[in-house]
Amino acid sequence: MKVENPVRREKYKILEVFDNKYPKRDYEVMHVAPEFTSVCPKTGNPDFGKITIQYIPDKKCVELKSLKYYLNSFRNEGMFYESVVNFILEDLVKVIKPRYLKVTGEFNTRGGIYSVVTAEFNPKKK
Amino acid sequence: MKVENPVRREKYKILEVFDNKYPKRDYEVMHVAPEFTSVCPKTGNPDFGKITIQYIPDKKCVELKSLKYYLNSFRNEGMFYESVVNFILEDLVKVIKPRYLKVTGEFNTRGGIYSVVTAEFNPKKK
Amino acid sequence: MKVENPVRREKYKILEVFDNKYPKRDYEVMHVAPEFTSVCPKTGNPDFGKITIQYIPDKKCVELKSLKYYLNSFRNEGMFYESVVNFILEDLVKVIKPRYLKVTGEFNTRGGIYSVVTAEFNPKKK
Amino acid sequence: MKVENPVRREKYKILEVFDNKYPKRDYEVMHVAPEFTSVCPKTGNPDFGKITIQYIPDKKCVELKSLKYYLNSFRNEGMFYESVVNFILEDLVKVIKPRYLKVTGEFNTRGGIYSVVTAEFNPKKK
Amino acid sequence: MKVENPVRREKYKILEVFDNKYPKRDYEVMHVAPEFTSVCPKTGNPDFGKITIQYIPDKKCVELKSLKYYLNSFRNEGMFYESVVNFILEDLVKVIKPRYLKVTGEFNTRGGIYSVVTAEFNPKKK
Amino acid sequence: MKVENPVRREKYKILEVFDNKYPKRDYEVMHVAPEFTSVCPKTGNPDFGKITIQYIPDKKCVELKSLKYYLNSFRNEGMFYESVVNFILEDLVKVIKPRYLKVTGEFNTRGGIYSVVTAEFNPKKK
Amino acid sequence: MKVENPVRREKYKILEVFDNKYPKRDYEVMHVAPEFTSVCPKTGNPDFGKITIQYIPDKKCVELKSLKYYLNSFRNEGMFYESVVNFILEDLVKVIKPRYLKVTGEFNTRGGIYSVVTAEFNPKKK
Amino acid sequence: MKVENPVRREKYKILEVFDNKYPKRDYEVMHVAPEFTSVCPKTGNPDFGKITIQYIPDKKCVELKSLKYYLNSFRNEGMFYESVVNFILEDLVKVIKPRYLKVTGEFNTRGGIYSVVTAEFNPKKK
Amino acid sequence: MKVENPVRREKYKILEVFDNKYPKRDYEVMHVAPEFTSVCPKTGNPDFGKITIQYIPDKKCVELKSLKYYLNSFRNEGMFYESVVNFILEDLVKVIKPRYLKVTGEFNTRGGIYSVVTAEFNPKKK
Amino acid sequence: MKVENPVRREKYKILEVFDNKYPKRDYEVMHVAPEFTSVCPKTGNPDFGKITIQYIPDKKCVELKSLKYYLNSFRNEGMFYESVVNFILEDLVKVIKPRYLKVTGEFNTRGGIYSVVTAEFNPKKK
Repeated sequence: MKVENPVRREKYKILEVFDNKYPKRDYEVMHVAPEFTSVCPKTGNPDFGKITIQYIPDKKCVELKSLKYYLNSFRNEGMFYESVVNFILEDLVKVIKPRYLKVTGEFNTRGGIYSVVTAEFNPKKK
Repeated sequence: MKVENPVRREKYKILEVFDNKYPKRDYEVMHVAPEFTSVCPKTGNPDFGKITIQYIPDKKCVELKSLKYYLNSFRNEGMFYESVVNFILEDLVKVIKPRYLKVTGEFNTRGGIYSVVTAEFNPKKK
Repeated sequence: MKVENPVRREKYKILEVFDNKYPKRDYEVMHVAPEFTSVCPKTGNPDFGKITIQYIPDKKCVELKSLKYYLNSFRNEGMFYESVVNFILEDLVKVIKPRYLKVTGEFNTRGGIYSVVTAEFNPKKK
Repeated sequence: MKVENPVRREKYKILEVFDNKYPKRDYEVMHVAPEFTSVCPKTGNPDFGKITIQYIPDKKCVELKSLKYYLNSFRNEGMFYESVVNFILEDLVKVIKPRYLKVTGEFNTRGGIYSVVTAEFNPKKK
Repeated sequence: MKVENPVRREKYKILEVFDNKYPKRDYEVMHVAPEFTSVCPKTGNPDFGKITIQYIPDKKCVELKSLKYYLNSFRNEGMFYESVVNFILEDLVKVIKPRYLKVTGEFNTRGGIYSVVTAEFNPKKK
Repeated sequence: MKVENPVRREKYKILEVFDNKYPKRDYEVMHVAPEFTSVCPKTGNPDFGKITIQYIPDKKCVELKSLKYYLNSFRNEGMFYESVVNFILEDLVKVIKPRYLKVTGEFNTRGGIYSVVTAEFNPKKK
Repeated sequence: MKVENPVRREKYKILEVFDNKYPKRDYEVMHVAPEFTSVCPKTGNPDFGKITIQYIPDKKCVELKSLKYYLNSFRNEGMFYESVVNFILEDLVKVIKPRYLKVTGEFNTRGGIYSVVTAEFNPKKK
Repeated sequence: MKVENPVRREKYKILEVFDNKYPKRDYEVMHVAPEFTSVCPKTGNPDFGKITIQYIPDKKCVELKSLKYYLNSFRNEGMFYESVVNFILEDLVKVIKPRYLKVTGEFNTRGGIYSVVTAEFNPKKK
Repeated sequence: MKVENPVRREKYKILEVFDNKYPKRDYEVMHVAPEFTSVCPKTGNPDFGKITIQYIPDKKCVELKSLKYYLNSFRNEGMFYESVVNFILEDLVKVIKPRYLKVTGEFNTRGGIYSVVTAEFNPKKK
Repeated sequence: MKVENPVRREKYKILEVFDNKYPKRDYEVMHVAPEFTSVCPKTGNPDFGKITIQYIPDKKCVELKSLKYYLNSFRNEGMFYESVVNFILEDLVKVIKPRYLKVTGEFNTRGGIYSVVTAEFNPKKK
């Protein structure tokens, strides 16, 4: 549980999608999961945080229940904060191919310090 | 109650309007309805949320009491969050033909996750 | 009390001004009146709200005590929210001829919905 | 929907129980349901509120999922606030026969007034 | 408007009641009206506050809509805070003859000071 | 300004009273003054705080405007927190002869510490 | 993971103690752990909550780091809320033999309802 | 105390400065003083408010203790809100010659209205 | 820095007192110090917390500035939470001999858990 | 402890780094340390504040535990607020060579004034 690398790469297969019925309009969907928990890869102690996902759907939306199971699957993985956020970003981009997507991870105080990591997928920016 | 499609399409007829007495000026009206409820199309369980409508009127304003009845009419409809917000947007645009309109739906926690959907009608943007 | 039109048009005469001693500098003044009340023109029931006035003075500033009396004078008038905000905007613009002025009316919950109306006088924008 | 009396009296049958594994100790359980909705028996408009149930179990505890379905069953009933709270109190006392039970209903603003009703079952008091 | 005495003594006739369906049980009803306004008997300026009514009904409950009209009827009366609270207490006791009743008036800041007045009807205490 | 003793002892003469119209009932009046300021008798620097007065009137109530002037009169006095609270208590007891009276002074942070002093006049307790 | 019974009974052995250096005085210690998580025995989904422990030590105090490991050990156990709270109570009483101890579990919203369970060890009460 | 004009113009001499050790970098300093008090030039009654100073230092920073004494020196001056803010702005600009400076005065409720005045020194803007 | 025992026992000598000018009346003084810091005797890492002192003075009051220096003197001491609170209690009782005294220490999150310790000196209780 | 200059310049050596695994993407990391304390170089009294670090990593991220030790190392240093913030900025830029970095220091009330200092490293701006 204490090594960061061998996280199961196939996690994204848990995510399910449904058709976006309003693809002509750019609109924003935000899902906030305040009950995220994973494991610190250094100490093996649990980490806790809130994951926020904001996106503009293209052809697909992420199904909410499968998102819950996907996030629950990190419960016993050992990962750094920076990896958690970038990992979720890449899985969601792969599965729903959105016009825009942002993942924010707000992690609880450890050693008197709390941390927030934010990563964005924005094909228009480049 | 568990299928999303056959929602009564004529809901917009509940909405009443009155003349905008200040059409020369761009000004903004916001109505916030924290007592919105509909039904989850998958489980048949009730969903709860807050609907916020912001718009710049052109010739017509939406009458407040009719807006209340309109929003109450979703009480027993089975709709996904994304559909609720886009559906209300299209009905209001059809009825008051505003210069700008935005609908935000903030939905209560389900399975440890809460969601916010935002859609905008902005003819100037295009 | 239930018709909107015959509101006393001379209300603005209640407003008093004093000379802006710093006319060379663009600075902002905000007055917030959380004790605004008028009457619903449809039902005759009282409405309650908060009126916020923000402006950049030119040659004149509005005197605070006269502003209080001016806002109190709406106590028994029957007016829609949209009219209250635009009416106050026009009176203040007429009396203090500001470089910029914005009026915001936040009105208490009626039928489970609360409303905010915002109007702006901005000669530079046009 | 507009008469209070003919509410289905068998509602309590929705409630399920499980055995209290710690009957030797007086301890307190509180369930808070902020998504309660019923119908005003006078106007037919929806009412919204938060129901709080506090009890000391004797031999039985109320099962949480059945409690959700029980509270959802009020969705289309026309009842006064005072009746909602006393009705739930009596159903729960009948089904779980607790050592103590209190029901609090906090109902959203109607006509500028919000209301709280509290009823208690306390066999020791008498 | 500036003399306190000649307030219409028949105000209580606005209040309507309905039968308490649960008279065997002592339970508590609270109505909170945050939009109370009357007039300062000294200056003629409006006063604003929040009136809270808590009672244990005996045979009668106060009907909510009539309570709203009753409280609205103070809008143009000139009364001191202490009088407002005691006056409402006596009217409600006369009309619903409760087992217990408390009225609290919380009044907005005047001259940098805000005030709270609380009066109780408690026949058991004596 | 730096010696505590020679505070003008006749301050209480600023306080005015009016007749309690409901002397048969024990009821409570609270006045909260969040804009209290005096001077630190050691350093001559200003102190700031909130004074709360709670009392059960007997034959007299304190008049609100005179209370404001009374509290303003401490603006340039040098007094310790403990003295401010007990001093106000004694003046008010002398002038309104209440059935009960409590004074609370909450004083802003000085040197990283904030302070609250509370004193009570309760003839029944003795 | 879905059966409640076979929870490892020897969990209490994780708890370490140290000598109370002030046994002559009754004083209170409170530890609050807002990052508690266990598993729902019915669905296998994670539950989240806050555990609060309040006690008056006799000869022993619970060591804080061992308490953290003890609470972490529930991470993959399937237990009802009522069992979690009573179980922790009994383990702590066994290990530190306090003069008084209370455990409160506040559990996050599930199905629109959140729950609080409170159990007490109070030898003086009996 | 009731005339605005003859305020002591040399107040700025109270302000002390120290050398900015990081002049190569544009960085921002904010000092917030929630205990500001002056006197209303119309009524002689005390005014209360919060003064916020934000600036980008050039060669000098304002020393914090001298800033406190400077702000205290307004305690018995009679000035309008608009004058207080512009006056402080001009004194600070004269003494520390900053790259940018903004003064905000938030003043407590008077007659049911509270006020905020904001003035900026921004040589780049012109 | 890592052993708890050899804390300088003469710390109490830092505390200064002044005469209670109102010894005939039981009144309460509370000092709250949110900037307390000491050192964890196990790890040598800093601990942070808020110390609250409430007492009824007899003949002496504690002088506020000396209290600040007294609390600052714990900055580099290694002490458990339970010891900090009981130690301060005993020093203050020794120096001001109060009629009643309570010390509360609220300590920041360590390992996901925060703690509160409360101890009381109450000669009347025994 | 009262001179600002001789702060140990090698503090930055406490900071450790790890490889950024997602260098192709611009993403933001924020660490918030609400338990910062240093010493006032003028009075020798402790200062308290919250340090926030926001950055876009290039090849390196700062390791969280070493950041804690780094910030703890200011505990007994005498430094002005402006120096603390610029000093930390320069050390972090030297060690992690980020694409962007901002340091904010929010310092507790001293003499009734609290302060915020913000400095930025932004190579793109120049």
